[in-house]
Amino acid sequence: MTGPSFIDGAHIWQVKGFSANGAHTGLKYKRKDFTIIYSEKVCDAAAVFTKNKLKAAPLLVSKENLSNGKAQAIICNSGNANACTGKKGIEDAKAMAGIAAGELGCSKDDIIVLSTGVIGVLLPMEKVEASIKKVASLLGEEKGSEAAEGIMTTDKMPKERVVEFEIGGRKAHMAAIAKGSGMIHPNMATMLSFIVTDVCISQSVLIKALTESVNKTYNMISVDGDTSTNDTVAMLANGLAGNDTIQDGSYEYDQFLEALDFLNEELAKMIVADGEGATKVFEVEVVNAPTLGDARVMAKSIISSSLVKAAVHGGDPNWGRIMCAAGYSNTNVEINGSSKLSLKAEGEEIVLFEDGMPTDYSEENAKDMMKKSFITFKLDIKKGKYGSKAWGCDLSNEYVNINAHYRT
Amino acid sequence: MTGPSFIDGAHIWQVKGFSANGAHTGLKYKRKDFTIIYSEKVCDAAAVFTKNKLKAAPLLVSKENLSNGKAQAIICNSGNANACTGKKGIEDAKAMAGIAAGELGCSKDDIIVLSTGVIGVLLPMEKVEASIKKVASLLGEEKGSEAAEGIMTTDKMPKERVVEFEIGGRKAHMAAIAKGSGMIHPNMATMLSFIVTDVCISQSVLIKALTESVNKTYNMISVDGDTSTNDTVAMLANGLAGNDTIQDGSYEYDQFLEALDFLNEELAKMIVADGEGATKVFEVEVVNAPTLGDARVMAKSIISSSLVKAAVHGGDPNWGRIMCAAGYSNTNVEINGSSKLSLKAEGEEIVLFEDGMPTDYSEENAKDMMKKSFITFKLDIKKGKYGSKAWGCDLSNEYVNINAHYRT
Repeated sequence: MTGPSFIDGAHIWQVKGFSANGAHTGLKYKRKDFTIIYSEKVCDAAAVFTKNKLKAAPLLVSKENLSNGKAQAIICNSGNANACTGKKGIEDAKAMAGIAAGELGCSKDDIIVLSTGVIGVLLPMEKVEASIKKVASLLGEEKGSEAAEGIMTTDKMPKERVVEFEIGGRKAHMAAIAKGSGMIHPNMATMLSFIVTDVCISQSVLIKALTESVNKTYNMISVDGDTSTNDTVAMLANGLAGNDTIQDGSYEYDQFLEALDFLNEELAKMIVADGEGATKVFEVEVVNAPTLGDARVMAKSIISSSLVKAAVHGGDPNWGRIMCAAGYSNTNVEINGSSKLSLKAEGEEIVLFEDGMPTDYSEENAKDMMKKSFITFKLDIKKGKYGSKAWGCDLSNEYVNINAHYRT
Repeated sequence: MTGPSFIDGAHIWQVKGFSANGAHTGLKYKRKDFTIIYSEKVCDAAAVFTKNKLKAAPLLVSKENLSNGKAQAIICNSGNANACTGKKGIEDAKAMAGIAAGELGCSKDDIIVLSTGVIGVLLPMEKVEASIKKVASLLGEEKGSEAAEGIMTTDKMPKERVVEFEIGGRKAHMAAIAKGSGMIHPNMATMLSFIVTDVCISQSVLIKALTESVNKTYNMISVDGDTSTNDTVAMLANGLAGNDTIQDGSYEYDQFLEALDFLNEELAKMIVADGEGATKVFEVEVVNAPTLGDARVMAKSIISSSLVKAAVHGGDPNWGRIMCAAGYSNTNVEINGSSKLSLKAEGEEIVLFEDGMPTDYSEENAKDMMKKSFITFKLDIKKGKYGSKAWGCDLSNEYVNINAHYRT
């Protein structure tokens, strides 16, 4: 076995020591609306939360519960975000953890509790209690991707992947479920992604790896520029793979991070591909920037631009909009109208802009390229050695339709 | 006469000492594409330009020409932005100023030269030369709003207003033409707004007033979050009203600024109302913020949110999205899930969120309010004494249609 690889058709509950199920429990009209991920063993756990100042109540409760670096379960309802709900929201999130702890037979402080859906509505706690009981009773009876389905809102497709990789000579696994679709412009984490692994790793090393990976993956996507109140990436590691505990800076750390990046980049792209109204995904790579931060800010500025996204939707190789979005990105890079920037598409096949001047590229080739469902651009800043990728989706009429009438 | 007032049906070329015309000159297929504003007397002049690092070539040339604080004419083509055009773009912008100076009989250093349109295409200079000659020959033969029409791109309506006001006991006038529509998220200035006045004011006081006013007006609007490479607000003051030169800090300065704000807020709202695909305008007022900067950043974050804009389009009073956008705005305001924020709509008629908790407002009243063509929200931070307004438009299918296929 060389690098990490996906196991086709596998599910998160197949990772050693974990169970995970989701169901329709009456919080939403018809679709699945509750998910529980449970580890038979208390895990080292880490999470990164939204930088939105108005963090939803469950995030505050989960942060407190994670203060000892341990967790045994993640529970999450969809349909209601429990955000902008004041003290009552905090009480409700704590009550959810308490009920789940009773059902699962673990400490309430070892529950990561999350919610996603409409902002500003109190949770229907009687229904939620029944939801927890129902899904807890279904653990061990997993069939397919129900856990991934239970956290979906406007998502069209469940997002779930299982990775097999090697660590310290042993085979290990890592799996994630995620949701996205709208209000996706993660800043510290994406809307929701729950990751489990059987690797043995201490909490301090886990949070380091998770943060590093999130910054390269979930934080580099955008659907609509709106950073949610509920963004969370949470991860549980139960240690059942039997490897020696991973140490920071070791070869095994690099193997672990490689697998984590591999998994997270895939989930991040899946979120973008299933962005509200999305029909295409485009990748922007900024290279030769003075700092890593500059490369990231610039790449993300481009994939977040409404005008770039609309041009991608229409198949119009209107590259001036890409340069414009690079120019207004909030960096300190010294570029101006006489900088020798270059912009290429389709790997390096099509040169749209070179050394700061328009080229005579074939409009026909460029239009053909823009018709593809996955489009790549590479912007060369020629001011340093750092690079970053970011992924966006197109802006379509369907996005407007979904969001003009979503809540009603 | 008390405060400033609009003169209905009046035009920019009616301000004493100015002429201004626009025409179709062959740069675009059918619509008017060139405008010249000319003052019979050299003016004190000021301009604020985009903060986009990739400033278009004419902005760099205009900035240089304004270094002595004087100008006599503004010339502007539409259809081509002369941006991302390298050294040749600079040469072309200088050549435009030179040709115009010859036609108008003034110094080439007293020409403010601007362009708007597609990025990344060299100007067709032979045609441009003919354009300048044609429009220069039409000065003095003004009929209507041709000057405002000559700078339009995807705008549906020309934007022009004339204000009458009192200064030092004398009647004075101020007028502006503007364009907007797409790539509108001004940072330092809006896409294009050209202002003339017959007031006598020194250049240093003029730039102070203009900057102050732009920050309250054009910088507080957004159509799509994209800050253009060509944003410019330029102003000419020819002094023919005969008032004593306005001094900084005087009563007359306040009168002048009041008139300037009055004019610019109106033009800024006109730009938003004619935003690409816009069917409604909404105003967000943030009050009781710790600093003016916080109030502005928060108000602008809300009116820029794709999700808020889509909800306004659909007439859905989904106020959670407004709170979310306030929460992710880039301020240092200490707000969180237990802050006692309030959100009201329709003046203060409808209380959507109070003291940090959802209210039992009438959904029916809220929906009726959301059907209006001008909607107002007021967010009370309760953390200070500063306030700011911002104006946005809805996000519609038409925006997507225009921008998916604009260039082709």
